[in-house]
Amino acid sequence: MNNKITIFKNVTVITMNENKDVIENGYVAYKGNKIIYVGTNNIEEALLADNEVEIIDGEESILMPGMVNCHTHASMVPFRSLADDYKDRLKRYLFPLEQRLVDEKLTYVGAKYAIAEMLLGGVTTFCDMYYFEDEVAKASKELNIRGVLCETILNFSAPDAKEPFGGLDYSRVFIERWKNDSLITPGIAPHAPYTNTDESLKEAYEISKKYQVPLTMHVAEMDYELSEYKEKYNLTPVQYLDELGILDSNFISAHTVLVNDNDIDILKKRGVGVSHNIGANAKGAKGVAPIIKMREEGINIGLGTDGPMSGNTLDIITQMSQVGKIHKLFNSNRTLLPSEELVEMATIGGAKVLGMGNKIGSIEIGKVADLTLIETQSVNMQPIYDYYASIVYSANPSNVDTVVVDGRIVVKNKKLLSGDFTEIRRELVDLKEMISEVAKSL
Amino acid sequence: MNNKITIFKNVTVITMNENKDVIENGYVAYKGNKIIYVGTNNIEEALLADNEVEIIDGEESILMPGMVNCHTHASMVPFRSLADDYKDRLKRYLFPLEQRLVDEKLTYVGAKYAIAEMLLGGVTTFCDMYYFEDEVAKASKELNIRGVLCETILNFSAPDAKEPFGGLDYSRVFIERWKNDSLITPGIAPHAPYTNTDESLKEAYEISKKYQVPLTMHVAEMDYELSEYKEKYNLTPVQYLDELGILDSNFISAHTVLVNDNDIDILKKRGVGVSHNIGANAKGAKGVAPIIKMREEGINIGLGTDGPMSGNTLDIITQMSQVGKIHKLFNSNRTLLPSEELVEMATIGGAKVLGMGNKIGSIEIGKVADLTLIETQSVNMQPIYDYYASIVYSANPSNVDTVVVDGRIVVKNKKLLSGDFTEIRRELVDLKEMISEVAKSL
Repeated sequence: MNNKITIFKNVTVITMNENKDVIENGYVAYKGNKIIYVGTNNIEEALLADNEVEIIDGEESILMPGMVNCHTHASMVPFRSLADDYKDRLKRYLFPLEQRLVDEKLTYVGAKYAIAEMLLGGVTTFCDMYYFEDEVAKASKELNIRGVLCETILNFSAPDAKEPFGGLDYSRVFIERWKNDSLITPGIAPHAPYTNTDESLKEAYEISKKYQVPLTMHVAEMDYELSEYKEKYNLTPVQYLDELGILDSNFISAHTVLVNDNDIDILKKRGVGVSHNIGANAKGAKGVAPIIKMREEGINIGLGTDGPMSGNTLDIITQMSQVGKIHKLFNSNRTLLPSEELVEMATIGGAKVLGMGNKIGSIEIGKVADLTLIETQSVNMQPIYDYYASIVYSANPSNVDTVVVDGRIVVKNKKLLSGDFTEIRRELVDLKEMISEVAKSL
Repeated sequence: MNNKITIFKNVTVITMNENKDVIENGYVAYKGNKIIYVGTNNIEEALLADNEVEIIDGEESILMPGMVNCHTHASMVPFRSLADDYKDRLKRYLFPLEQRLVDEKLTYVGAKYAIAEMLLGGVTTFCDMYYFEDEVAKASKELNIRGVLCETILNFSAPDAKEPFGGLDYSRVFIERWKNDSLITPGIAPHAPYTNTDESLKEAYEISKKYQVPLTMHVAEMDYELSEYKEKYNLTPVQYLDELGILDSNFISAHTVLVNDNDIDILKKRGVGVSHNIGANAKGAKGVAPIIKMREEGINIGLGTDGPMSGNTLDIITQMSQVGKIHKLFNSNRTLLPSEELVEMATIGGAKVLGMGNKIGSIEIGKVADLTLIETQSVNMQPIYDYYASIVYSANPSNVDTVVVDGRIVVKNKKLLSGDFTEIRRELVDLKEMISEVAKSL
């Protein structure tokens, strides 16, 4: 066990603890991967007695909990900026593209690049839904990011499973392999109600229950999804999933846009957490998930980017201002969702959605050291009267200076330390020509 | 006259010319401040015969026209992040704050900082509405940005004029002083219909007409503005302004949110241009200006940030994705406003709104060299299949590498060359304590 002590000094600490303490001129120390001090005392001398101490001078930066991206398809980054404004592109464009192109290598190369982007943008934990999740796990371990990695289940042949629902078998092996890992939490991801059957959904649920791992799904995202379940069962998608008996606190409901008050009651009762993916939902003209109401009901809400072919970015900083602005606009109320609540969703809110509220999401003694340091010297970051507002409405991912995951410094001085970024980029760019060719043929 | 030739090579040129040509492996050359070549021929050797040639290797970056910020109050940046989520804050908070604090020095220091931020974010022209515009002009000249600078007219005492409407006299002197400047276009800015009288609006219009300079105003931004004009005259604000006879092609209508089809007809008929300020309008829950309809009618639309106390950022890159996403969302149509149209509004569209469509806004022979180079090496910028989409949905202001205004390189390697940024920041931060004190008392 690594017992090295690391001290951040000269920082404003956004703790996101129960009291939402903000500590100016603060110190944060961690030993190994555990936070051991948060406060204003100069603990340097006391700790310097220790053999191994590293001191990081934050130079008036903001130290906040590492951000949580609750919903993405990381390995889709090789397709970013393709077919952005197409109609009905999931079925017409995206599924065919994936069927033709996604293999282990693309998944791995894409995951590495996307993870680099997340770390450089201050994301320390992500929840992924894709194929070949073993490759995503490998990439996550290499670059040292915390991952909730969920293999996709579909009613047609997937890139990594010729038979429909082949992801179920993949998942059993995958979960067994990773269930005790310190960074990886394996899970299972039926793609959506409309791409599954009663049986496949129940089987996925049994797996999630047996291993007590997350189950994530796209829920109530598509207008045709709503009309299909209305027509077939006279139920909403949420009612349908509830009648199947598969909603519980392991369930991570992505999007959850087209839901009514009764659906919200159900989600609340079952302890379901919601990933709110406003950037992608807006760009795809899907609608605005009613998270104000969900929050009032006490449902845990985290933020997600969706895949980089839908949302185009993987950081959570830029999601926060979009959430704030769009909900203020839709509700004609500028006082809604003050910045503090947006930072909450980006950190401890997301941690709770992923079932990790006791481990990550806030800077508190005993939690693991997943930390993001935001510099305040760049032109967009001054002046600061309200730290939350500056993070939400001024910052962008380029302000992330240092990132710690599980006690390890993975980004410093805005550079990736846990991997060779130039090489990671070269491997991604090398895929471009082949992808262009196939995309043209669709 | 400076006759130096500068050549950009190894760039993808987003020309924004009539054909919307995108030139890969392109060259752009300018002599003095005028563009003399745009194309794919290697012109290095031919031009190297010239005495003074500087070659800039773009390393596969994107060279686009400098962006245009059609509406801001630059000198409000010292107040950024104050009172973000307050209700009715214009009258309750913002006007009182300004009356207590805004003087020549704050205006100058704020303008310098804001201009540095705009240049570093790729904005080469901005339209400003504030007080002490002489100070803003001074700052603009020092840092070498193109400015359409408009002194505010109000029906109460302003920071730079004890008497109501004192801005009218200020404007006459200001316009005389700057009317022949190469970078500064002086103008006049009645704050809004509801903070002026028939007489002050007409007088401002006469000044604009006499000197043929821009007149800009906040129009149809506030719900109380709409009800006031309905009640008093049974007119919309746009109808009211039209009946006064002050709408013409020198008129730059900021916000223009609460307008109906008839208003749009009027704006079209009078040749009014509109600054669409979606980020600030969303954050302030003001509504969504119907720019889809306006564009269909052929009205020129540019983008604006509004003041940094309302919109918090001063770059135009991050406005583009907000415009795209919010209009797709509001119209439930993901195909609306493809990225090319968003880049158009950010460049040539804005140039036309400011009456400079023949001079700036596109990369074409004969136009002045106002250029922005966006690097594509950062993690958020790869891969690129669609240059417009990458600028709109992936880029952020930190990707701006080099900026040219009027032929002069003002930003290079992401550093400000035309001023000492450390000093500019120090002067801004020095104001913070005083501002905090006053803000607390409001």
